[in-house]
Amino acid sequence: MSSSLQLRARLIAPGLRSAPRACANPRAIVLHHSRTLFNSHRPGAASSLKRRSLPANFFVRAISGKPLRQSNSYILNFCFRAAAWLGASLTVIGVSVVAFFIYDASTYKEEATHSDINLSELALQPRRGGPKNLPIAEVFIGDDDTEETRAMKEKPRLVVLGGGWGGVALLKDLNPDEYHVTVISPTNYFLFTPMLPSATVGTLELRSLVEPIRRILHRCRGHFIRAQAEDVEFSHKLVEVSQQDVNGQEVRFYVPYDKLVIAVGSTTNPHGVKGLENAFFLKNVDDARKIRNRVIQNFELACLPTTSDEERKRLLSFVVSGGGPTGVEFAAELYDLLNEDLSRHFPRLLRNEISVHIIQSRSHILNTYDEAVSKYAEERFNRDQVDVLTNSRVKEVKEDKIIFSQKMEDGSVVTKELPTGFCLWSTGVSPTAFSITLAKKLGDAQTNRHALETDTHLRLNGAPLGDVYAIGDCSTVQNNVANHIITFLRTLAWKQGKDPETIQLHFSDWRYVAQDVRKRFPQASEHLKRLDKLFEEFDKDKSGTLDFGELRELLGQIDKKLTSLPATAQRAHQQGQYLAHKFNKMARLSQGLLANDVKDGDLDAAAYKAFEYHHLGSLAYIGNSAVFDLGEGWNISGGLWAVYTWRSVYFAQSVSFRTRMLMAMDWAKRGLFGRDLISF
Amino acid sequence: MSSSLQLRARLIAPGLRSAPRACANPRAIVLHHSRTLFNSHRPGAASSLKRRSLPANFFVRAISGKPLRQSNSYILNFCFRAAAWLGASLTVIGVSVVAFFIYDASTYKEEATHSDINLSELALQPRRGGPKNLPIAEVFIGDDDTEETRAMKEKPRLVVLGGGWGGVALLKDLNPDEYHVTVISPTNYFLFTPMLPSATVGTLELRSLVEPIRRILHRCRGHFIRAQAEDVEFSHKLVEVSQQDVNGQEVRFYVPYDKLVIAVGSTTNPHGVKGLENAFFLKNVDDARKIRNRVIQNFELACLPTTSDEERKRLLSFVVSGGGPTGVEFAAELYDLLNEDLSRHFPRLLRNEISVHIIQSRSHILNTYDEAVSKYAEERFNRDQVDVLTNSRVKEVKEDKIIFSQKMEDGSVVTKELPTGFCLWSTGVSPTAFSITLAKKLGDAQTNRHALETDTHLRLNGAPLGDVYAIGDCSTVQNNVANHIITFLRTLAWKQGKDPETIQLHFSDWRYVAQDVRKRFPQASEHLKRLDKLFEEFDKDKSGTLDFGELRELLGQIDKKLTSLPATAQRAHQQGQYLAHKFNKMARLSQGLLANDVKDGDLDAAAYKAFEYHHLGSLAYIGNSAVFDLGEGWNISGGLWAVYTWRSVYFAQSVSFRTRMLMAMDWAKRGLFGRDLISF
Repeated sequence: MSSSLQLRARLIAPGLRSAPRACANPRAIVLHHSRTLFNSHRPGAASSLKRRSLPANFFVRAISGKPLRQSNSYILNFCFRAAAWLGASLTVIGVSVVAFFIYDASTYKEEATHSDINLSELALQPRRGGPKNLPIAEVFIGDDDTEETRAMKEKPRLVVLGGGWGGVALLKDLNPDEYHVTVISPTNYFLFTPMLPSATVGTLELRSLVEPIRRILHRCRGHFIRAQAEDVEFSHKLVEVSQQDVNGQEVRFYVPYDKLVIAVGSTTNPHGVKGLENAFFLKNVDDARKIRNRVIQNFELACLPTTSDEERKRLLSFVVSGGGPTGVEFAAELYDLLNEDLSRHFPRLLRNEISVHIIQSRSHILNTYDEAVSKYAEERFNRDQVDVLTNSRVKEVKEDKIIFSQKMEDGSVVTKELPTGFCLWSTGVSPTAFSITLAKKLGDAQTNRHALETDTHLRLNGAPLGDVYAIGDCSTVQNNVANHIITFLRTLAWKQGKDPETIQLHFSDWRYVAQDVRKRFPQASEHLKRLDKLFEEFDKDKSGTLDFGELRELLGQIDKKLTSLPATAQRAHQQGQYLAHKFNKMARLSQGLLANDVKDGDLDAAAYKAFEYHHLGSLAYIGNSAVFDLGEGWNISGGLWAVYTWRSVYFAQSVSFRTRMLMAMDWAKRGLFGRDLISF
Repeated sequence: MSSSLQLRARLIAPGLRSAPRACANPRAIVLHHSRTLFNSHRPGAASSLKRRSLPANFFVRAISGKPLRQSNSYILNFCFRAAAWLGASLTVIGVSVVAFFIYDASTYKEEATHSDINLSELALQPRRGGPKNLPIAEVFIGDDDTEETRAMKEKPRLVVLGGGWGGVALLKDLNPDEYHVTVISPTNYFLFTPMLPSATVGTLELRSLVEPIRRILHRCRGHFIRAQAEDVEFSHKLVEVSQQDVNGQEVRFYVPYDKLVIAVGSTTNPHGVKGLENAFFLKNVDDARKIRNRVIQNFELACLPTTSDEERKRLLSFVVSGGGPTGVEFAAELYDLLNEDLSRHFPRLLRNEISVHIIQSRSHILNTYDEAVSKYAEERFNRDQVDVLTNSRVKEVKEDKIIFSQKMEDGSVVTKELPTGFCLWSTGVSPTAFSITLAKKLGDAQTNRHALETDTHLRLNGAPLGDVYAIGDCSTVQNNVANHIITFLRTLAWKQGKDPETIQLHFSDWRYVAQDVRKRFPQASEHLKRLDKLFEEFDKDKSGTLDFGELRELLGQIDKKLTSLPATAQRAHQQGQYLAHKFNKMARLSQGLLANDVKDGDLDAAAYKAFEYHHLGSLAYIGNSAVFDLGEGWNISGGLWAVYTWRSVYFAQSVSFRTRMLMAMDWAKRGLFGRDLISF
């Protein structure tokens, strides 16, 4: 700004300063007096110009950087500030809206993006091969789309089976330039499973819980194939996948890999119960929608004039089989729906005749949580008139009732019936057909009936070392500390020309062994804290040394203490992240390893530490309150503030900015409009 | 605030005023000089106190109503203002968030709302009766829920069949205290049909387009029964409805009425084409979801390595049969999806191989719109590489192709084939099974094969006068002006003892007749504007009077000009509103009519004017641009600004604040994150 312009503004400005009205007002006198201490002439000068009309550039000045308008009126000043605040806020909101529209307008593409593209002949006509002579997808149709994707063609091929917690955690942490990534999954989206119970009653929308895999893959320029993994040819490094073509016929083909990550998850455990075709599950989006539709269907049927009272009570009796987090959260969400939304628009009779039951085989619900937490949840449900039936086992699910046996306090077992219009089955996990196929194929290397066994580097036991990994619900980490270390010692002994059976370990040797155990089995570290105590305890002959038998017993004891990792999103997530970091490290090292001609052997162990699970705590929503089990006896439970905390945790864990926004919108929707009781 | 406190603030305040730095700066000298004109001593006084530290009550002062801080520094003032604006905005946003959380927290109900309720025995055990001896739902289980609902029990029973545009418009304008309202519909939500094409590709979510009927009914304390209307017993005033019970078996019962409004809508018109089981429709929520899933399914199949190039092109060939607004908007939305979102995450090959075709039987798409509008839409599609095939009729839809005949420019008809992976069938409307049943039952009173005929008071022809009304797509208003007026004249003539065949109408008589026509057939008014011209024209013997034959011919001519009303949301909406206003008026008048012992006869005509349709214009979205046909040659078409206008119109028309919010959120979502290409 030029100084002459500034000068002009100054010349006019003082006229706007209002001065004390009249000296007859005693307060004004005081004010006047006080000001003269520092600034004696100003008020007089201003006062003489007081009655001047508004200058022409008043409005220009109002948004300039010139001195602010002066007034001694408390009210005027307050109004000025309030107006400024209101105006400012409205302006910001207005500007945001306009900015959004401008941005929005820029998202509409006008011109079609047709252009010639390169295509490998092999992408259109894949060659056949492998043990079953199926087409082998060596080149994808998107491989030559851009410079960037072309550059990936020569990289090692990383194939991920499954787009759940494990697979997505891996994709999110993987360096984008190191691997040619392909994800194979029957669903083209990642599902934020912990919030699925919320979606069954419409607290959240299903679309807010999912993120397209392709969007996640975008970062590492990966490819997605919507298909089902059927088998793996380990020696040919081929995954056999199947997909229905447009006529519903099954098509099978191979996808080659250099590294394969199995993260296919699990299915529901039927526990050998009859009639599960009458029950609902809660594993995927479709399940959630089916549940929602059935719940509302039951409400609508209960409203019909032809429905008898008995039938109405049955329709409105909701049974949850399984007192784990999923079952408990579903019961809580259902109760919320009934309590907050149903009574608003449906006849009151329905509200009176509704009942919610949880059937739990253990003595408490949430039995993997701290006992205080379980008790809090039970008390809460008790207050909310949710019926918790502990020590009960479902024997059969019929169309209109559930038959279960309950162990009474006196130890007797009583068989009971519960008429029901809806039964949710949420009792643990089972391996998928694909996992079972693989376990069979690998024979003796796989001994666990419930999951695929891996070593602590998450490599699938029995598969060629460093080719195949398994993470998440479909896998379990084998912690046979005793066997491994004994083998290790034996090799050591033979090398030194000693007989392992006669070896004697001094405390310093034992310390060395313990260090090795810690490195190989990080999960065991916790049980190796007091080495001296352990040494003393198992040195039964007080010889000052451990012999082979004593060592085996010591390590066997540790084995027993190691529990298998929980089948949770948290574990899968950590395993996915672990693999991503390891793969990144291995890619960085690969140049060096190639130069040193190191191609085989235990590259994983050479490059990266073994996997260690860190339990960060469990949480559950239990109906206008939430519980947190933070491990080691720490736990929190509380009302609405805990609910908001519970939401914050999941909000933060959510997979993308997009899902976070949608979840926030959904919660706002619930607050503003309630849940929709509509089915489609 | 006490004056002493105010004094203290003054004493400290000047220390905060910054003064010109040094007079060595020539600009500062000018400023100094200019200021001294009015206020010579201030700068010096302030300057002497410049280095004082911040007073203790600085922050209190910052939010008080005291005089604003004074400074001569342009930058400081600007910063002060900017900070105030930013701070104010953040505060407003923060306060809004906190306020929302406080409100949200208030929406969680803590206590269960169990309480004893009154129930009529008849509600639990309806008596049987009627021609088929079915249960009669005379009392509902919600009838005694509150004082308010109890008060409604004695009111006339208004039963509305259908919860579409007509039914909902009626419900929204009906006075809440006059009728005992029951809505019977197979879906428990109202669907905002004009936006359905947007939902097929995920521009909008389906849930944003629906509003639960119970929420709409809440205002008039009505009841909702999710069931299908099957038949009406006019003489018993009973509607027969059916519903599947929980075991899937059909249950039928009667719902009694005093006034019945039939607003059941229409189904898709098959036009006798073979193979429509291979086509998709777009009438309801389920259709939209099926389309969305199929489109994405085709994309996924096109990505598979085993899909041949020919098959890929077929999968990506989308055909729309029908060039009306629904078909055109679907094609436009599909094109947007392909252009804006598909290419972002799918291989580029797909984008290159996609084709969209519109098959239209007429010579233009949007043929009910102004020709300029049609042409604009065609040009737009042409630019967007959407293939418009006019003068073409689909003969058969096969699984993998469409067979259609096209009339060439030389008049010859050629049969063509189009390989396709998806065909949408959107070619006009047909009556529902219920409408056909009613039309048959009413025999000669119903002669229209396409819809239920009503008089201009929307009363169903053939049903007892004033009992049954029909509105929306399922109905048509019979405008047989000639017949009605001739009958009216005949009655008049006989009363006066004259032979109607010999009657002679002078111009004044004709004016009287025309007035009567206008009142009974408001739709004919437009054609009765120049009475003198009409009189002259049809007075063929120039006798100065119209004889019976001449009058018949005149009125017949007007009949021909009256077209049937379009099957649009707009018409249904206006008819619903009309009925609501009429029913309100009739309820107000009923006391008077009862007092005067007027119970029968043409109460509708006595109470309210006949229905007149006002066409407000048509609009359509055609892919990043929109067209508006405002009638009488007025039309607008344009790019993005028209799209925003188009959205504004539907935003305003939307059924509730809730759906408006959701729609706005969805549009924002599309802008921010694009559409999800996921299917479930």
